[in-house]
Parts: sequence; structure tokens; C-alpha cells
Amino acid sequence: MVKKPAPDSARRSEKSRRAIYDAALALVAEAGYPKTTIEGIAARAGVGKQTIYRWWSSKADVLLEAFLDLGAQAAEQAAEQAGGPGGRPDDEYTIPDTGDLAADLKYVLRATVDELLDPKFEAPSRALAAEGVVNEQLGREFVAKLLEPQLQLYVRRLRAAQAAGQVSSGVDPRIALELFVSPLAQRWLQRTGPISYEYTDTLVDYALYGLAPR
Amino acid sequence: MVKKPAPDSARRSEKSRRAIYDAALALVAEAGYPKTTIEGIAARAGVGKQTIYRWWSSKADVLLEAFLDLGAQAAEQAAEQAGGPGGRPDDEYTIPDTGDLAADLKYVLRATVDELLDPKFEAPSRALAAEGVVNEQLGREFVAKLLEPQLQLYVRRLRAAQAAGQVSSGVDPRIALELFVSPLAQRWLQRTGPISYEYTDTLVDYALYGLAPR
Repeated sequence: MVKKPAPDSARRSEKSRRAIYDAALALVAEAGYPKTTIEGIAARAGVGKQTIYRWWSSKADVLLEAFLDLGAQAAEQAAEQAGGPGGRPDDEYTIPDTGDLAADLKYVLRATVDELLDPKFEAPSRALAAEGVVNEQLGREFVAKLLEPQLQLYVRRLRAAQAAGQVSSGVDPRIALELFVSPLAQRWLQRTGPISYEYTDTLVDYALYGLAPR
Repeated sequence: MVKKPAPDSARRSEKSRRAIYDAALALVAEAGYPKTTIEGIAARAGVGKQTIYRWWSSKADVLLEAFLDLGAQAAEQAAEQAGGPGGRPDDEYTIPDTGDLAADLKYVLRATVDELLDPKFEAPSRALAAEGVVNEQLGREFVAKLLEPQLQLYVRRLRAAQAAGQVSSGVDPRIALELFVSPLAQRWLQRTGPISYEYTDTLVDYALYGLAPR
């Protein structure tokens, strides 16, 4: 399917919107969340303050959407690398279900490793995560809108694995996913250890088969 | 054994030291790490700036020791609650080894839950953790001096469990401990979910026995 070209005004808006996202992410990375202001974002994006206020009500909102957009861009790039449009399913926000749970989880966690090590992603993500640690309202908003929806993808994949008899029926999927997601998150956030494919593969094996001998 | 009373000068130092710790923890909790200064700590503790510089070379050093002291105080209180002096072994910084690995891990993680939910601990810990996320040097220093030594206690306990045949010999204990420590850390840091004894007990069971049916 060929996309219809967008009308001029939509393209102009799209361009401003992207410039605002870029400015917001760059500013928060450089100055930290408390010193990032709507005025600063507008100046850096080369738009009027009112342009920002027309679309968003706060800097938290701008940053939240900038992150959602960054994630969408990363997914598009991954799709292109995977063989151009059509190389991946339309809904890129699912975890594959090939029937091999360990392989599917390892695949997604390896992609997360790539994202966490991407310099474009690192500084703004750290700035926002740090603010969320001390600013409860912002932290909860970002978890609800950004992090929890991603975790729910694992919940869905683990439920399918339960239906297929690959995960014990008594297991709570929302807790289970933390056994491989949280170690990676902590190593990244607190720099408690190096991050690699080998590491996340190991987490998946330990979580699925347990530390005690079978 | 009865402790000999400390000489006057030592008691005076001890009192100043405690006042400086309290001031440093209160300030970082209220103002955040970047706005906490040696001058501010000195003013709040009612001591001269030179008193602080005599003992520490930077605010990071003061805060590191203040946290180590906070941990020591918490351990002392736990010892008293457990039956007064002698109610716990002298070396409170070990994980018990009753031969029941699951029970021992659950015991220590429940104590960690109590600590994380202690309001005296919460605000300064969050301020420091947040700064460590964006300030790599500080983050690495606190991991090396504060967090990693605690994690090494789990490594030791898991090695003993390997020797006793309760953990598979091929498991890397330094990674294995993250399956129950990191989920708790992430829920606390990022507020991704509630923290309770039931939750940490579940983490230990999932980690030891795995998500896949046995």
C-alpha cells in the first residue's frame, strides 16, 4: 500500500512536532528534568511557546510523547533492517510467539539491550528515569503510560505460554516477567554490571528453569 | 563484655559526626544531591566547614559514610528487637545459613522490604539513587562501596547452596541473585508495583524452582 502524501499544513505540523521532540529530548539530556522548560524547548526547536501549548499542557506531556515517538522510530528502523516494509507484522508492539518461549524472550531482550546501549536513547532516558525516582507524580505517570504497557506485552506472552503448558499455571505472569526484565533494568539504571546478549540469554534460562537442580 | 566509656574528646567527635550525617541525609532528601553542599551540611549540623573537611574530602564521601552509618543503625535496631545484645551474631552482615536456602533468602528480603519502607531511609536513598542514574562517577562509587558488598553476601550464600547441592553447579551466583534482588529494587526505584513480604517470598520461589513446570 502506498501512503497518500500528507497535505502541506500536516507536513508542516509534523516537522514542528518532530523538532519539538528532538529539542525536548536534547534539553532534558543536557540540563536534567528540573531545568528543562517549555520556553527552552520552544527556543531550541525554533517555534513559538504557543505552538507547544497548543499541543501539550506541560513539559511532562511533551517528554512523554517524545519518548513514545522515539520508541516508534526505533521500531520502524528495526522493521527496515528486518527487510523493509512488510518485513515485520504491522503491530510491531508484540512479542513473537514461535512456540519456543525461551527463544522469543531472548529475541525481545536482545532488542532491548540494543536500545539501552543506543546513545540517542541513553541520556534522555537516564534524565527521565532519575527524575521519576524522586518525583513521584512524574514517575507514576511514566510508568503508567510508557513502562507498564511494555511489561503487559510480556504478561500476554507468558499467558500464552501457560496455555501451551510451558509455564506453570500457578505462576503470576506480572511478577514472573520481572525475573528477566528487572535485572536488565537495574544493571542499566544503577550500573551494577555489564549488559550483553549473553547476559539476557542467561536470565531467561535461569528464570524458566530455576536455580535449583531439576 | 561491657564497653569502656569513650573519652570526652571521642564522644564529642562521635556526636559531631552523627550530627553531620543527620544533616547530610536531611539536606539531600530535601534539596537533592546537586544542591547539597559542604557549607550547607556544616551550617545545619552546627559545626564549622573545617570540621567536615578534616574528616571527608567531598560531599559524596560524607553521604557515603552517612548511608553506611544508617545501615549500621538499622542493623543494631534489628539486633535489639531480636532480643537485645547477643540476640544476633556479632557479624550482622551475613545472610543466615540454616540449610534451608528458600527460608534464608526470604528472611533477608523481608528485612530489606522493611528497610525500603522505612521513611527515614526513603527520601535520602531516592535522592542518591536518582543522582547515581545521571552522574556516572557517583553512581559507580556508590555501587562499589555500598551496593556491591551487599550483593556479595548473596553470592556467598548461593555458593554455599551450590556446595550443598541446592543450586545447580553451572549457575553463576552473581547473576542468579539478580532474579530476586533486582525486581524488588526496580519496584522500589521506579514504583512499578507494590512491595510486600508476599511479593518477595514469591520471587524467591519463582527464582529457585523456575517458571516452567518441573
